[in-house]
Amino acid sequence: MPLEQLRAYKPALTKLPDFDAFWSESLEELAQVPLRYERTPFPYPVKGLKVYRMFYEGFNHSRIEAWLALPESSQPLPGIVQYHGYNWAWDNQLLDTVNLALKGYAVLQMICRGQQSESVDNVVSSNGHVAGWMSKGILNPREYYYRAVYMDSVRALEVLRDLPEVDGDRIGVTGGSQGGALTLAAAALSDIPKLALSDYPYLSHFERAIDVAPAGPYGELNEYFRRHSSDPRIEERAKETLSYFDIMNLAPRIACRTWIGIGLIDEITPPSTVFAVYNHLSCEKEIGVYRYFGHEHIPAAIIPRLQLMQDVLGS
Amino acid sequence: MPLEQLRAYKPALTKLPDFDAFWSESLEELAQVPLRYERTPFPYPVKGLKVYRMFYEGFNHSRIEAWLALPESSQPLPGIVQYHGYNWAWDNQLLDTVNLALKGYAVLQMICRGQQSESVDNVVSSNGHVAGWMSKGILNPREYYYRAVYMDSVRALEVLRDLPEVDGDRIGVTGGSQGGALTLAAAALSDIPKLALSDYPYLSHFERAIDVAPAGPYGELNEYFRRHSSDPRIEERAKETLSYFDIMNLAPRIACRTWIGIGLIDEITPPSTVFAVYNHLSCEKEIGVYRYFGHEHIPAAIIPRLQLMQDVLGS
Amino acid sequence: MPLEQLRAYKPALTKLPDFDAFWSESLEELAQVPLRYERTPFPYPVKGLKVYRMFYEGFNHSRIEAWLALPESSQPLPGIVQYHGYNWAWDNQLLDTVNLALKGYAVLQMICRGQQSESVDNVVSSNGHVAGWMSKGILNPREYYYRAVYMDSVRALEVLRDLPEVDGDRIGVTGGSQGGALTLAAAALSDIPKLALSDYPYLSHFERAIDVAPAGPYGELNEYFRRHSSDPRIEERAKETLSYFDIMNLAPRIACRTWIGIGLIDEITPPSTVFAVYNHLSCEKEIGVYRYFGHEHIPAAIIPRLQLMQDVLGS
Amino acid sequence: MPLEQLRAYKPALTKLPDFDAFWSESLEELAQVPLRYERTPFPYPVKGLKVYRMFYEGFNHSRIEAWLALPESSQPLPGIVQYHGYNWAWDNQLLDTVNLALKGYAVLQMICRGQQSESVDNVVSSNGHVAGWMSKGILNPREYYYRAVYMDSVRALEVLRDLPEVDGDRIGVTGGSQGGALTLAAAALSDIPKLALSDYPYLSHFERAIDVAPAGPYGELNEYFRRHSSDPRIEERAKETLSYFDIMNLAPRIACRTWIGIGLIDEITPPSTVFAVYNHLSCEKEIGVYRYFGHEHIPAAIIPRLQLMQDVLGS
Amino acid sequence: MPLEQLRAYKPALTKLPDFDAFWSESLEELAQVPLRYERTPFPYPVKGLKVYRMFYEGFNHSRIEAWLALPESSQPLPGIVQYHGYNWAWDNQLLDTVNLALKGYAVLQMICRGQQSESVDNVVSSNGHVAGWMSKGILNPREYYYRAVYMDSVRALEVLRDLPEVDGDRIGVTGGSQGGALTLAAAALSDIPKLALSDYPYLSHFERAIDVAPAGPYGELNEYFRRHSSDPRIEERAKETLSYFDIMNLAPRIACRTWIGIGLIDEITPPSTVFAVYNHLSCEKEIGVYRYFGHEHIPAAIIPRLQLMQDVLGS
Amino acid sequence: MPLEQLRAYKPALTKLPDFDAFWSESLEELAQVPLRYERTPFPYPVKGLKVYRMFYEGFNHSRIEAWLALPESSQPLPGIVQYHGYNWAWDNQLLDTVNLALKGYAVLQMICRGQQSESVDNVVSSNGHVAGWMSKGILNPREYYYRAVYMDSVRALEVLRDLPEVDGDRIGVTGGSQGGALTLAAAALSDIPKLALSDYPYLSHFERAIDVAPAGPYGELNEYFRRHSSDPRIEERAKETLSYFDIMNLAPRIACRTWIGIGLIDEITPPSTVFAVYNHLSCEKEIGVYRYFGHEHIPAAIIPRLQLMQDVLGS
Repeated sequence: MPLEQLRAYKPALTKLPDFDAFWSESLEELAQVPLRYERTPFPYPVKGLKVYRMFYEGFNHSRIEAWLALPESSQPLPGIVQYHGYNWAWDNQLLDTVNLALKGYAVLQMICRGQQSESVDNVVSSNGHVAGWMSKGILNPREYYYRAVYMDSVRALEVLRDLPEVDGDRIGVTGGSQGGALTLAAAALSDIPKLALSDYPYLSHFERAIDVAPAGPYGELNEYFRRHSSDPRIEERAKETLSYFDIMNLAPRIACRTWIGIGLIDEITPPSTVFAVYNHLSCEKEIGVYRYFGHEHIPAAIIPRLQLMQDVLGS
Repeated sequence: MPLEQLRAYKPALTKLPDFDAFWSESLEELAQVPLRYERTPFPYPVKGLKVYRMFYEGFNHSRIEAWLALPESSQPLPGIVQYHGYNWAWDNQLLDTVNLALKGYAVLQMICRGQQSESVDNVVSSNGHVAGWMSKGILNPREYYYRAVYMDSVRALEVLRDLPEVDGDRIGVTGGSQGGALTLAAAALSDIPKLALSDYPYLSHFERAIDVAPAGPYGELNEYFRRHSSDPRIEERAKETLSYFDIMNLAPRIACRTWIGIGLIDEITPPSTVFAVYNHLSCEKEIGVYRYFGHEHIPAAIIPRLQLMQDVLGS
Repeated sequence: MPLEQLRAYKPALTKLPDFDAFWSESLEELAQVPLRYERTPFPYPVKGLKVYRMFYEGFNHSRIEAWLALPESSQPLPGIVQYHGYNWAWDNQLLDTVNLALKGYAVLQMICRGQQSESVDNVVSSNGHVAGWMSKGILNPREYYYRAVYMDSVRALEVLRDLPEVDGDRIGVTGGSQGGALTLAAAALSDIPKLALSDYPYLSHFERAIDVAPAGPYGELNEYFRRHSSDPRIEERAKETLSYFDIMNLAPRIACRTWIGIGLIDEITPPSTVFAVYNHLSCEKEIGVYRYFGHEHIPAAIIPRLQLMQDVLGS
Repeated sequence: MPLEQLRAYKPALTKLPDFDAFWSESLEELAQVPLRYERTPFPYPVKGLKVYRMFYEGFNHSRIEAWLALPESSQPLPGIVQYHGYNWAWDNQLLDTVNLALKGYAVLQMICRGQQSESVDNVVSSNGHVAGWMSKGILNPREYYYRAVYMDSVRALEVLRDLPEVDGDRIGVTGGSQGGALTLAAAALSDIPKLALSDYPYLSHFERAIDVAPAGPYGELNEYFRRHSSDPRIEERAKETLSYFDIMNLAPRIACRTWIGIGLIDEITPPSTVFAVYNHLSCEKEIGVYRYFGHEHIPAAIIPRLQLMQDVLGS
Repeated sequence: MPLEQLRAYKPALTKLPDFDAFWSESLEELAQVPLRYERTPFPYPVKGLKVYRMFYEGFNHSRIEAWLALPESSQPLPGIVQYHGYNWAWDNQLLDTVNLALKGYAVLQMICRGQQSESVDNVVSSNGHVAGWMSKGILNPREYYYRAVYMDSVRALEVLRDLPEVDGDRIGVTGGSQGGALTLAAAALSDIPKLALSDYPYLSHFERAIDVAPAGPYGELNEYFRRHSSDPRIEERAKETLSYFDIMNLAPRIACRTWIGIGLIDEITPPSTVFAVYNHLSCEKEIGVYRYFGHEHIPAAIIPRLQLMQDVLGS
Repeated sequence: MPLEQLRAYKPALTKLPDFDAFWSESLEELAQVPLRYERTPFPYPVKGLKVYRMFYEGFNHSRIEAWLALPESSQPLPGIVQYHGYNWAWDNQLLDTVNLALKGYAVLQMICRGQQSESVDNVVSSNGHVAGWMSKGILNPREYYYRAVYMDSVRALEVLRDLPEVDGDRIGVTGGSQGGALTLAAAALSDIPKLALSDYPYLSHFERAIDVAPAGPYGELNEYFRRHSSDPRIEERAKETLSYFDIMNLAPRIACRTWIGIGLIDEITPPSTVFAVYNHLSCEKEIGVYRYFGHEHIPAAIIPRLQLMQDVLGS
């Protein structure tokens, strides 16, 4: 799709009538979970910085791992929650957290449940799924994997805001790919963030993604449908479930300032699926378009993002 | 490794002192689960055959899906439990079950928990894992994914034996790859099977598999270790866990007649890992070696397997 | 091509004026070959089933190998001729034959001449060809490889009908890919079949196949044309030859009930080439469309095919 | 295999007792075919050169296509027969022939029967084979494809010698890959050549080639054996057939001056298979070893080959 | 793009107002370099041919390597300058030169500066570049790599014309890919050539090439732009530089007879970029279109090219 | 090579007698170039940090681009020079520089001449080369590309030491791949560095690298040799040139504390080539070995490197 078409591409939303009710209930269920967390100092050989390994109580009372880095400061700090990419967590997942904290922010990185490390994925699904997490619980929105993850993402914001070192009125969210989706989901489902910086967000415009990106992680959905070809109702039910989690459907709920970045040769989160989100945003927004980049680190996006952090959150 | 070396390749077992105790406890835990199952006729357009969709209560009281096919017979039937390959279940997973049943056997195919379809994977792991199931719960043998699956495999045998149409003294187990591993695990952990037919078994000789087969599903382990490189104790603990589930360590427990097939250009379950199992078997045994085959359907293995079924189980 | 377009896609036929005359002559030439065959019992370790290795006299008096499997029955059996895929024969090519026979059919599988095994390819071509069979004899319809194969396919039906165990009024044909093409060719050129079940048929709508599927076996044609680029008349002559064998051109001759299956991501026999055949069928017909499948085993197609066999042929 | 090992690598010959008798009979059978050929001028826009399209009567009375190029000369010309690579013929296969002729030689290029173009492959095999020619007739040395091709190669020499423009005492043979094998076969089976220039010869040391080069054209043999895995006698018979055609076994018969070229990263005709031939040569011989080349055009080999032609054949 | 569209495809030229002035200045700068060359006999084992290694003074007084081959002749010879492909020079780059000379031409092959061998690339660029030569000096037309190469190409013609053995009124230019571009550039910038034979010319219609051929050598430009994404003026400046060198923009300057060859599946120099040049030619012209060929040797193009040489240049 | 062998792998050095003289002369030549640099503030949206774009006069008076980042500090800062990977520079190459500076170091990143960006590669080579820089000037050590780059690397240290904000006694060097090689080269050729941190260094043990890593950038050498196969003296001369630049030969000159990191599945800079360097170091040294990593970011290496910086340089 050429850029001009992308700029105008705004497919119809696919949300069902109870879309908002579903999320209200989910947030209420989250609210039942007490705000609890613990942090342990983690020795890190850099002066002027405190690093903590953290666990907080997430959705369904799960134990969620996070990393926290705080620059020394006599003032309350602006804060940022980071979300990592799909299947992209490592032990000592500290590098980005530390590097961003050193720029003057209290940074908390949530580790997605089940994806390596120690966050516990405690929602048992009534169905099997394709290897990976994309189809886990897909036959029931209440069991779908990302319901818990979206709620964990909101809770991460609540934890960060609760820290004594943090100025709760200056909090942002950021991440790329799955992290970019969680960034937007958190901005849609929580009023804490004042800024959302989302690199090539995933989990968006599923209907099209299945057609144009079967070779990437969206392809887990293709594989799921493929393995349930005998009964067309399975695919229908799964697509209904996905509609609740489609970032495109959540986009209109976002109120804070939002920046999205996308490379025009991205084959993992194709530009059309990203513009579909962007064009449904009604908040103050910008999009960074990178002609020669795919789903990868984009150097030219660094300064604009840092500038926005500084402008909106201070530092 | 040339064939002559393979025939002599017998690496030291890696089992820990409480290996047998671990399995005794696990079997006792399974024994606490009542033998419960239900079957629903599934319309299948073939005369002389009854097909059922089945659910039984598996390890940890999980709901396990299975398929059952019974040829019409006035006599008690010999029975066979089938186990499918890793990440290789489909809806209406009937084809092999039906085709084997038509050869005169009561055939029950277990669907591995969590792997598509409807078997419920209800063991919550305290840790995250790599996409797939190979590292789920890997830091604790009691939480490891395959503990439940091995026990479900034993229970499948108990279910089949319990059926009124089946002659419980003439039951075999079969499968390829993951299914080949479950075949051998079931034969090692249950005294029901009189015959085990295992095509290129997986889950064997992990220490070597990690070195020689990182491009296949064993590579999930490499990926797990890779993502936990900061702390060498993680890899140690994971390998301890794996030792309980290594088919090579279970091999000496197998008492029934056993046949194993392996292709010499198999890169998924390399021949050395398979001979490591075979050479540790002390039961009556044979191995089918196929010079020009990899991890795939091997036509020349069909008749020998059918012949063994007929010879050992009757039909 | 989106599905809606496929359903309406009906390119003009490419047959030349003497198309029907060509096939009449070919059938007459076949009729000159006496109906001769022999069968030898082949030991197969399954009760209630007789398996035979068979040779029959095919087109040009060639010796054609086949496999025959007959379930025990006191009644005349419905019969099915199976045709295998291109370059896809093996020794002891029995599995599918046996498995179908056990469902209540007398099944005969023809081995295509020259393609491994023992069927003799005795038509000498005046020209060389690309490795493979697609361009063998392509400069002359009377020498083209598939002329003999189509006639062998018809003869296979005559042999099956001639067997004392078979009810000649209840015979079907089936196969996938090349086998799917032979299925339709046999149904077009013989009045024996009452049912044709064709998975993703090959050898259809060559003009388009050359453009859209050069990476698969159709690409032998591209390679042939490529190697004869100096003289455009060669490509013209070759395409004229192909027109006689294009299943699309044979489609209107089919009178029996016909089912075709196709996956929408099939890159070997692209959906457009298959719908081109289907949309030219004037018989009673159905098409199974599988959104997430390529040129491969399609589990969801099994039951519909078995159901049709039972409905049309009985069992 | 490091170069020092290659230089000493001399595996045992595999020829059977009737090896020489087999070739004597074959040559006698060839001698029954009358020496017949025709040539038609082929317009070629280069002065001082005559080009002809040629057909000669080959083994089994087949019609073999060839190209002939003759530089204008008042003297009898030295002559060279060229053989092309496996599956590597094109229409107007003139380029190499013309370019060599312009260097002062009467050049005749034989087109291998069946491999594109118009040479007729008229030996009917009693068995099927893998796509390609490597296993055609492989169960019987008298039916094997290369028996006819080797004999056609000898006949090409007889034709060239018979031309009035040619000095029959100054004839050489050359080619690469399959052409390199035919070069050596012709030098072994005919006393006409005074010089053999063979680039990376194919068809040599089959036993090892099957093990180390299954991804190239030798892999047709692997595929053949793979498809006949049920009965080990098939592979034995096929290997017996191959022993008659193994260039390594023919090498000791070569009497003329011989040059062989081989690249050390050749994966199609691995260096070990080529040194196996070279080390069995007892004639005057040289080998060009190219460290950084595979199965491809090797610029550094051009001048040495031309120099040898000039030295041995004159020009 | 289908062939009919290609035949009509004539995108707007992109040249800037000082385009012709730029080239006049460049040619004047070249004219300041004295016509100097030396040749050393190179022993080559072919009678009737003289081969020389040559060095001439190129643009910016660089030392440019060339090969010269002259057939023995008592008459002045028609001459041809050959240009090789991008990154495609070898030591003893003689084969094509010798083979063409033997057809009756004085042939000089220029080795592109810097691309292996011994031509000295002596223009120092003020900027870095992507590995390769495509972006060397790209921010300034006076520094751009191809400015010197185009001028060296013109000088090669002047050298050839200056040779006593050559008839300066019968000189042609030829080459493929980069060599095809230099062929056309030389024909546009020098009035020496009477014939230009260009196989699949490179360096044409850059704007489109970047979009459709990023996987080939044009992709060096994509990579350059990609690495300079922060400042859009860089890409603008680079594209301005490229406009001076775009063969499409030079096409209207060509006055001599011109033949271009292109394969329709060429992915290196896509047909649309080649037709863009062709359709802007106003000289006497022909195009050879090869349906089944990519960026490779095209046998069917040989005779037409030789015929044109003979017709236009004599031989 | 298994790890135990690697730990003992110490091939003979390949340096020629004038090795040290060569470098003394080169350093003297560098000393002739005045220490000159300029810096321009570069706006960067992070508080407490100053960023500059810098140019300094490098070897042969070239203009070398660099980036400089300085944390605010009232004390002289420890300093670090960073070198980037081969062919791995980007515009605004700031990310690593900024992130390291924020940890308390004055960081200067040198951009390698010619490799994108604006460092001028002003050594004209008398020979052509393979695309890339590995063979530029390879026939003469004084012209070889890396001579200038090694000297630029030393000069970068001199520039950093000269800055008023920097404590010249606490300077380190770091980089990965090519940057790891420059790190070690700078530590061998300058006494400024007190610490060298080198990730998987490139440019080491060329003789072996050519054999085991032809698919990576070392393969430019293979390609160069390949294209100069006619004259073996070319390869000899090139290897002599390389011996001056082989990090293995420079290793014994390093006196400062040195850490090297290497992944055991690194196919770009194979572990054996890295251990060859390490085992020739006579300074205080450590090696980080990562079993499951290739030539890529290694999370587990971050903290050890930062710890060493803090321990040796302070921060």
